[in-house]
Amino acid sequence: MAPVKNGQLIFNEIPETYPIPGKTTKYVEKDIDLDTVSLNGGFLVKVLALSSDPYLRGRMRDPSEPSYMPAFKLGEPIEAHGVAKVLRSENPKFKVGDHVVGVMPYEKYTILKDESEFMVVDNTEKLSWTTFIGAAGMPGQTAYYGWKEHADAKKGETCFVSAGAGAVGSLVVQFAKMDGLKVIASAGSDDKVAYLKEIGADVAFNYKTTSTEEVLKKEGPIQVYWDNVGGQTLQAAIDYADIGARFVECGMISGYNGEQNPPKNMMMIIGKSLRLSGFLVGHLHYKYKEEFYRTMPKLLASGKVKFREDITKGLENGGDALLAVQKGTNVGKAIILVADE
Amino acid sequence: MAPVKNGQLIFNEIPETYPIPGKTTKYVEKDIDLDTVSLNGGFLVKVLALSSDPYLRGRMRDPSEPSYMPAFKLGEPIEAHGVAKVLRSENPKFKVGDHVVGVMPYEKYTILKDESEFMVVDNTEKLSWTTFIGAAGMPGQTAYYGWKEHADAKKGETCFVSAGAGAVGSLVVQFAKMDGLKVIASAGSDDKVAYLKEIGADVAFNYKTTSTEEVLKKEGPIQVYWDNVGGQTLQAAIDYADIGARFVECGMISGYNGEQNPPKNMMMIIGKSLRLSGFLVGHLHYKYKEEFYRTMPKLLASGKVKFREDITKGLENGGDALLAVQKGTNVGKAIILVADE
Repeated sequence: MAPVKNGQLIFNEIPETYPIPGKTTKYVEKDIDLDTVSLNGGFLVKVLALSSDPYLRGRMRDPSEPSYMPAFKLGEPIEAHGVAKVLRSENPKFKVGDHVVGVMPYEKYTILKDESEFMVVDNTEKLSWTTFIGAAGMPGQTAYYGWKEHADAKKGETCFVSAGAGAVGSLVVQFAKMDGLKVIASAGSDDKVAYLKEIGADVAFNYKTTSTEEVLKKEGPIQVYWDNVGGQTLQAAIDYADIGARFVECGMISGYNGEQNPPKNMMMIIGKSLRLSGFLVGHLHYKYKEEFYRTMPKLLASGKVKFREDITKGLENGGDALLAVQKGTNVGKAIILVADE
Repeated sequence: MAPVKNGQLIFNEIPETYPIPGKTTKYVEKDIDLDTVSLNGGFLVKVLALSSDPYLRGRMRDPSEPSYMPAFKLGEPIEAHGVAKVLRSENPKFKVGDHVVGVMPYEKYTILKDESEFMVVDNTEKLSWTTFIGAAGMPGQTAYYGWKEHADAKKGETCFVSAGAGAVGSLVVQFAKMDGLKVIASAGSDDKVAYLKEIGADVAFNYKTTSTEEVLKKEGPIQVYWDNVGGQTLQAAIDYADIGARFVECGMISGYNGEQNPPKNMMMIIGKSLRLSGFLVGHLHYKYKEEFYRTMPKLLASGKVKFREDITKGLENGGDALLAVQKGTNVGKAIILVADE
């Protein structure tokens, strides 16, 4: 068969603040012959959907700056969680027609090798494939693992979730309600606030038009804070935390695209006997992954846990999806639909 | 009997930066008739020794600033842990001749009332009475409780203790060694560094002449950080923490007397799955107090745990002792010797 065009979204330039489509990232095409390209023991997949996540901004940096994840390489494709269908395989664990999930390059066709990094999805609940990079994938695991491991939630307590309408936050809101907590949640638009109410938040507010401090003063003190934002929102949460409150440190989006503004009231961590638990989903797979796949797809398929997806069509528009999650303009889990089955 | 002079060290003025003796605090005298002064159900004590602790700076503030402890009242005596001998009593729990420990005013003679705040010391190990406001008192409890509750120390791990030669830090260094950890400890003078080596620190350095970052880079990564300092020292500890490290947040002296300089690398709390546990000793009495008094005095009396005291003689010099712990010029637990038995 003749070669086909293989589109890629490459990391083109280190952004100063927000990642700019066409500048930070660039869509390019190369030729690939799907029948003859050498697999070297790996497996060739057709990418169906890719994830755009806030944490990816941390990889768009100068490689000399240390961090917990390697920097993206200039000229190479962006990488993130994706779901793909196997076209050819030299690895017996991945069969033609299988759907696999794992971190893969932003390209239409790609050869995957490290089998430990990929999982064949057994979609018995018949969820949309995109769900496996959203509520039934990494963001879902983040919410599920972090809540189970670090919140120590007790019925009747009050929980504050920042970026509560996001891919992770919206699940945390629902887990907190399932555990019998009062939930305060913030988001950056009125549409998101409406969604927060729809999924059960007791108090939902637009932090751009309503002061976080005022809301927490009125509705707090809080015993659990799920932090997706960091900076001044974290400071407000410390100010209105109860003695012995647990802070689940999941993200600090406020500092990803510019100067950080760390809380000035760190001393209250001592005075209030607060516990701040940072975590990466990858550090907790060993403990919760099996339980997650047994539980979460059912909760999603039954509608007991709600989720929204914000689909960007076409890998050539991937840069817009990457920017959206940094600015918070997406409504629901940001996903790039690369191809149909 | 004729009245005697009752010296007091009063809170005279809110300090801008460091508390200045004679300005922030002032020594005054009032008359008291020890035989006739009305007890109203309380008990009259002769104060033997008072504690000067870093945290007291937090109480020398404008009462309108919220904090976890009430502000000192202008014109009223400073209050801190003290050890005193009962002279007269209308409370059967406190008998004449008993030695009591608890938070009491900085005055030579005082009438105590709230019985739940005071404990009669059963000094079976014949320790110096001053020990009960030092290694066998609140600072000892702070080190003991915090280490047991929050360090999750494992043999072979590496622990960094800032202000390691202080009243709390020097005990933490020894607890960490007893648990089989490698201990890195910082202090602010060469004399203190020598003491750190004497009590078993594997790596001891003067942070004023040696870069904390350089030491941690060479001797880390650290799995436990005992934080007495906060600010940029906390930032360095985050930079050189291992995945899953535990931070015991005990004090942040770097921010007590001026502008705070919070860490700019808070995001690494997430990336490294760090846990920061703040605590106040008072929140943990219920769990460890009984065990502490069963264990700690024996360890101190036998010399298995070493401690140093820095004695300031005379309540009129109490302001110097209060300043010393803010500047770190004391060597060992700062204690004001008010009177002999």
